[in-house]
This record gives sequence, C-alpha cells and structure tokens, in this order.
Amino acid sequence: MTRTRVLTGITTSGTPHLGNYAGAIRPAIVASRDAGTESFYFLADLHALIKVTDPARVQRSTLEIAATWLACGLEPEKVWFYRQSDIPEIPELTWLLTCVAGKGILNRAHAYKAAVDRNRAESEDDDAGVTAGLFMYPVLMAADILAFNANKVPVGRDQVQHIEMARDFGQRFNHLYGEHFTLPEAVIEAQVATLPGLDGRKMSKSYDNTIPLFAPPATLRKLIMSIVTDSTEPGVPKDPDSSNLFALYQAFASEDETAAMRRAFADGIAWGDAKQSLFERIDAEVAPMRERYEALIAKPAEIEAILRDGARRVRETHVTPFVTRLREAVGLRDLSRIGPAADTAAKAKPALPVFKQYREADGRFYFKLVDGERVLLQSGGFDAPKDAGQRVAALKREGRLDAADEAVMLGDGIAREEVDAALAALREAAEQA
Amino acid sequence: MTRTRVLTGITTSGTPHLGNYAGAIRPAIVASRDAGTESFYFLADLHALIKVTDPARVQRSTLEIAATWLACGLEPEKVWFYRQSDIPEIPELTWLLTCVAGKGILNRAHAYKAAVDRNRAESEDDDAGVTAGLFMYPVLMAADILAFNANKVPVGRDQVQHIEMARDFGQRFNHLYGEHFTLPEAVIEAQVATLPGLDGRKMSKSYDNTIPLFAPPATLRKLIMSIVTDSTEPGVPKDPDSSNLFALYQAFASEDETAAMRRAFADGIAWGDAKQSLFERIDAEVAPMRERYEALIAKPAEIEAILRDGARRVRETHVTPFVTRLREAVGLRDLSRIGPAADTAAKAKPALPVFKQYREADGRFYFKLVDGERVLLQSGGFDAPKDAGQRVAALKREGRLDAADEAVMLGDGIAREEVDAALAALREAAEQA
Repeated sequence: MTRTRVLTGITTSGTPHLGNYAGAIRPAIVASRDAGTESFYFLADLHALIKVTDPARVQRSTLEIAATWLACGLEPEKVWFYRQSDIPEIPELTWLLTCVAGKGILNRAHAYKAAVDRNRAESEDDDAGVTAGLFMYPVLMAADILAFNANKVPVGRDQVQHIEMARDFGQRFNHLYGEHFTLPEAVIEAQVATLPGLDGRKMSKSYDNTIPLFAPPATLRKLIMSIVTDSTEPGVPKDPDSSNLFALYQAFASEDETAAMRRAFADGIAWGDAKQSLFERIDAEVAPMRERYEALIAKPAEIEAILRDGARRVRETHVTPFVTRLREAVGLRDLSRIGPAADTAAKAKPALPVFKQYREADGRFYFKLVDGERVLLQSGGFDAPKDAGQRVAALKREGRLDAADEAVMLGDGIAREEVDAALAALREAAEQA
Repeated sequence: MTRTRVLTGITTSGTPHLGNYAGAIRPAIVASRDAGTESFYFLADLHALIKVTDPARVQRSTLEIAATWLACGLEPEKVWFYRQSDIPEIPELTWLLTCVAGKGILNRAHAYKAAVDRNRAESEDDDAGVTAGLFMYPVLMAADILAFNANKVPVGRDQVQHIEMARDFGQRFNHLYGEHFTLPEAVIEAQVATLPGLDGRKMSKSYDNTIPLFAPPATLRKLIMSIVTDSTEPGVPKDPDSSNLFALYQAFASEDETAAMRRAFADGIAWGDAKQSLFERIDAEVAPMRERYEALIAKPAEIEAILRDGARRVRETHVTPFVTRLREAVGLRDLSRIGPAADTAAKAKPALPVFKQYREADGRFYFKLVDGERVLLQSGGFDAPKDAGQRVAALKREGRLDAADEAVMLGDGIAREEVDAALAALREAAEQA
C-alpha cells in the first residue's frame, strides 16, 4: 500500500509561540506517527525571505524552529525533515512552474490582493512596495508541494487558495507535458486551535501578543499574569466561554481538568488564581520539551547536520530523480540522446517546392511546380499522363531548366534563376535521401 | 588589470539564420577575441521554456545553437560557454532577486505590456494567456547577468529596459544586504545589422521569412532566388539603397565588393544575376563553417560534453562561491556558525519589567516597576535615594512582594500575582546573567 504523503512547511521568520504549538506543531507531530502517512516537514526559509530582510533573524528563526520541532518529538529518522534552501531542485521547479502558471491566477491571490487593497486605501499605486516575491509566493509553494507529489497539505483556511493554485499549475503542466504531478488536496483541521494572545486577539507574531513556547518558567509566568482580563472581583462567577484564560487552559488541559476549571469559573475563581493554574498546566506540558530544546539549541552544529542529512536523503530518494524526469519532459535534455533528424530539424528546414500533376477540363494532362502558394513553372497540355510524368522526372533529374524547353512556361513574375534554384534544391534533397 | 566581463545569452528556441549570424554571432565572436574582455556565452534554455512548449524543439535548438557558435569560431577553452539550465544557482539567484524586485517595475516591461495591449485590442482580460514566465522573464535575465557580475551586456534596443531592470534589482539587493553586485551596462551595437528576410521585413523567426544559416547550398540558393524584388527589367538601373538584395549583399561583402555591386545596380544588373552573386558571396563565407557544423552536429555527445565542462568550470570559478556568499548575505546560513545569543534571540524574548527611580516636586525619592507602559508597582516617597535603592534591591532579590510591605502600592488594575510574576522573572534573568 502506498502511504499518503502529507507535507507541512514552516516559514522561518519568527520564534515559535504557544499558538504555533497548539495549532500546528502538536497536531502535526501526532499525525507524523500515523503508519499510513509518509510525512514531509520542511523549514521554508526561501519563503521567509519574502518578508524578512534581516539575515540574522532568518538564521536564528531557522535554528529555533528546527530545535522546537525536534524537542516537541519529531523523529527525523522516521519522517522527511529538511530545509527548503538545501534543495536546489525547488527553485528549479519553481521556474518550470512559473512558465506554465497563469499570471491572471496569481493576480487573485489573497495576500497579493490584500496588499493592493492597502495601497488603494492609502491612494498609492496598486503595487507600491509590493515585491515580486509576494506575488510569486504561490508558485514557490506549488513547487514545494508538487516536488514530492504530496497528496495532502494541512493548512489554515487562508491557505486553501494556494493549494488550489498548486493544483492548477500542476494540471497545466500535466496537460502540456504528460501526467507527472499528483494534484494535492488541502486538509483543513476540523477544529483549528487558534489561541488568544496576551491582548485577547488571535496569538500572532504580527500582533506582537505572543507567549514564546520555550520562554524560561518565570518569564512564562509573568506573561501569563499579564494576560488582559476584565475586572470581575474574586468570588463573582465568571463566564468561561468568553474568557481568553479559559480558552488557553482548554488548549492544554484534559477534559476532566477543563470541566473542573469550568466549575471554578462558576464558583468565582480569582483571575490571579486562574492565571496561576494556567501557568502550571502549560508549564507541566512544556517543561520536558523545554529541557530538550535547550540542550538542542546549545549544539547548533548537530541541528545543521540533521537538516543536511535530511535534505541529502530526500533529494536522493525523491526530488532529484523526479526533477530530472521533469527536466526531460520540458526539453532540458542530454543532447547526446537526441532523436534522428526525422523530427523538428526536418520541420525547421524550409519546405521544398513540389510538382503537382492534374487533368484539366480540356481532357489533357498538365503539371506545375509550386513553392508554397507561388507557381514557379506551368506546363502546357500533354495527351497522356505518362508524358507529363516523364517531363517531371527529367526536370528533377537535371536540376535545371532547359532554355529550349517549350513545353513549360515560367510562372507570373518568376525569374528563370529561381526555377533553376528550386529544381537544384529538389535534386539535392533527392540525392541526400 | 581586471578584464571587462561581457555576457551574451542565446535563447534556444529556433534554428540560427543569416540574420542571427550577421547581427549577433559574427560580431560576438570577433569581440570574444579581445584580450581585454572576459566573455560569457550561454544557451538560455530556461528562457526558451517561456515560449516553447515543444520539448523536442528545445533540445534540437540547443544542439543547433551550440554547434553553430562552435562552428562559427567560438573557442570554448578561451571563453565561458555553458548552458543556463546546467547552473542550479541561476534559479536560486532568481528567487533571491524575486524577493527584492518591485512588482511595479515588472508591470512596465515592454514584452508584458505588449501582451496586455494585444489582449485589450481583442477585448480580453489584460492577462489572458499570459504566463508568469513572460512576466518574470526580466528577473531570470537579471540573475543571468548578476550571477557573473557582468559589466557589459550587448543587446538590441528592445532589451535595454531589461538591463535597466537588472541594475534596479541589483541595487535593491545591495541596499538591503551590502555591496554584492556590480551594476551592468547595456551595450547597443553602433550599427546593428538587422538583415531583411525573404519578404523584405526584418529577418525573424516570428515572420517565418528566414534563411537558415547552414541550409545545404542548393536550398540556400533556392531561398535566395525566392527573395522578393520589384519587376524592374534587366538593363534598367536599380536603386541599391532601397533593395533588400543589396542590403544582404553588403552584410557579407567587403567594401570593394559592395562598391562593385553598387555600380552593377546602376548598370541595370538583372535580379537573377544579382541573386546569383549574393548566393555565391554568402556561400563563400558560410561553406567552411557549414562543414564544421555538420561534423559537430553528427557528434552530439561531444557538444554535450563541452557544455557540461563549461558549466562545471564556470560554477567552480564564479557562480558557486558567489551564490554561497549571497545566501550567507540573506540569512540562508550554516546554523553551526550562529552568533552568540546576544543577537535577535535576545530581542525576540519579551522585554523584562524595569524599576525606575526618580525625584518628585515634593523633594522626596520614589520608584516604580513598569512593564512597557503599564505601571505594576508604585512606591511612596523616601527621604534619601539610598533608601529607595535598597528597597528596589530587596524586591529584586526576593522575587516577590511582601504582603505586609506598606511602602509600595499596586498599579491601577494590577493584581498582586502579576507583580510577583514580574519580580520572579527579573530574579530569574539576574540569575541567568
């Protein structure tokens, strides 16, 4: 049985936070242990370059994210775990897909359209400050997916469109060059765990409201204590379902623990106590991983070696042979394996003139020499088709016009030299054949 | 002395014709022998994919163009001669430049605008049938040029804009990441030799009016004989300066030969004779090259080996070390060579709260504990700064608030637990430092 290929990319532009952990890392690592799945996880550093122009941040984020996934339990010997920029075939495939991708489709990408909308709101040019990187993002992402013929790509709702684009580009390529690509499907998590951040909005780097996953314990506690709550006094019942604290707690607690916290809310637990419980619950889950994380990040050379080894193996097994086939398909081929000249070279040669024989309404037999639509030579009438045929054969054999030949006339506006040249070319072709 | 680097790309989408030879190949090969020049010639097969979706044609054209340049005298041991798709760093660099290229600039590219204009004329969507390849063409071309820090790029007038774009992208990259790229200059041939084709329009594949450079002699003659002329009779003087035949003759003849032909025109040479002279003049120049071409094209494995060797050497000498530096510059770095945590990681950690000490208008000394803009703790007044300082030191040391401490008050809406958490984080940071 072929295992389903599931592919997940992580953009290396920030420090992993609790929202990343609960929403992406934890479920992905659970999924990676499914025996029916062949999992691909990659650090999308080429994507990071679209947004991040601070090189130290790209490097640091790559290290932190790699260490985080390993610390959270990703087993690099059981899944494919690699860094995008270690696979030179990815930008190569990006170009092959660029050549088939419809520009009109890219115009409709949400991220690009949002940038245009912002510019319009500020009365700027549509593309002010927009890089080609933002615009071409979906093509790079399509290469990431199609390079492995991934079947499924777990994504948030805002990314579904990108998977549809990858399908479209893959389909166009298949249409032009044969069936090479499996068309991927988006998998949207039934209950996407988005956590609230410090200020109550969705926890996100762009809101600067995150709790780093591996903050030291006291820092973690301090941040949790600073989560915004309302001013309900201790002893007054509180509504768990409108509480950010409760939502965070639920993301880390068992069903029983959650039910107990729900009762505590009804009983009017003080915010400070609720925060303390939340800190303890999160720290209980995070502490063993934090320890592994700190050990890993202290040895960046080992992480580098794991990533390089992953890239080497995934290239050998998957990407290099596949992209070699794709190069072959589009015509980037070994010249020594070229077919005999019967192909396009012959077509590229200018067409030879041809003799056409026919019978007219007068019952007699004629021939003419035509080059495309131009009549170079026109015969008079012969009584028998054989006579006309013999005259044609003689002209082909001689490769020039006999000046005394009265059975044929030059076409309108045609010089004798042109007819001679045409006949010579016909003879040359016959000799070479 | 550093030699000037001159770079020339040839798109592998067709069969070389006389117009390519006189306009591009012949002058480029003369230029390649200039001792002050380091010349780069490459087969632009990645560019070909934008227009050509027939893989056999891409392969055949690559072979024909490589054999043509070699037959015409390019010396692969004296210049850099390679196939674009053999250099994986080119698509990699294309992506790095994509991330800095302004989309607005690409919108203004002539080739793209021409496609939009055609669509508008046919009341189609602007981007109907336009691929991202056509749109991104200038970025790939910038990578071709900037990868070698080429100083000069000989181009036709219609390509000058692309060189300007390469300068722009290079400049943006330099601005963001340091001075890595030399900015290229376009070199427009003083007298660009564009030859007329069979129908009198510019000889061009797109008009289907070309004379293949290495057509067999009789085919060459036939094609020349079919060049369109007016119906001026033999013996009647003819105007050389409005004659396509004369323009073609001039492109291959010496000054003396040209002057003699000018006189023959004045003397009323017959078109057929003029065509015969033109054929003989061209064939005299082409015949020895045609012989070499046929020998070369019969051994495609040797051409493949020459191209691979060229790519291997130019990668070793130029591209690989340079693109490695560029990767480093943007942050695609070996993780084992990461700087100490004093960099972005520290910044990524949430800021610690701080104690601020100050004197009020009442002459007394105060302190407060602030976390960003929030006041967590506010002291009463002390008589001496030393007293305030000692209290701060004690709080830092203890890492929590003494419930009996009456010298300090909680900030507005701040819970005791949050202050405790903040103090604990401060103590933890002090211990780790």
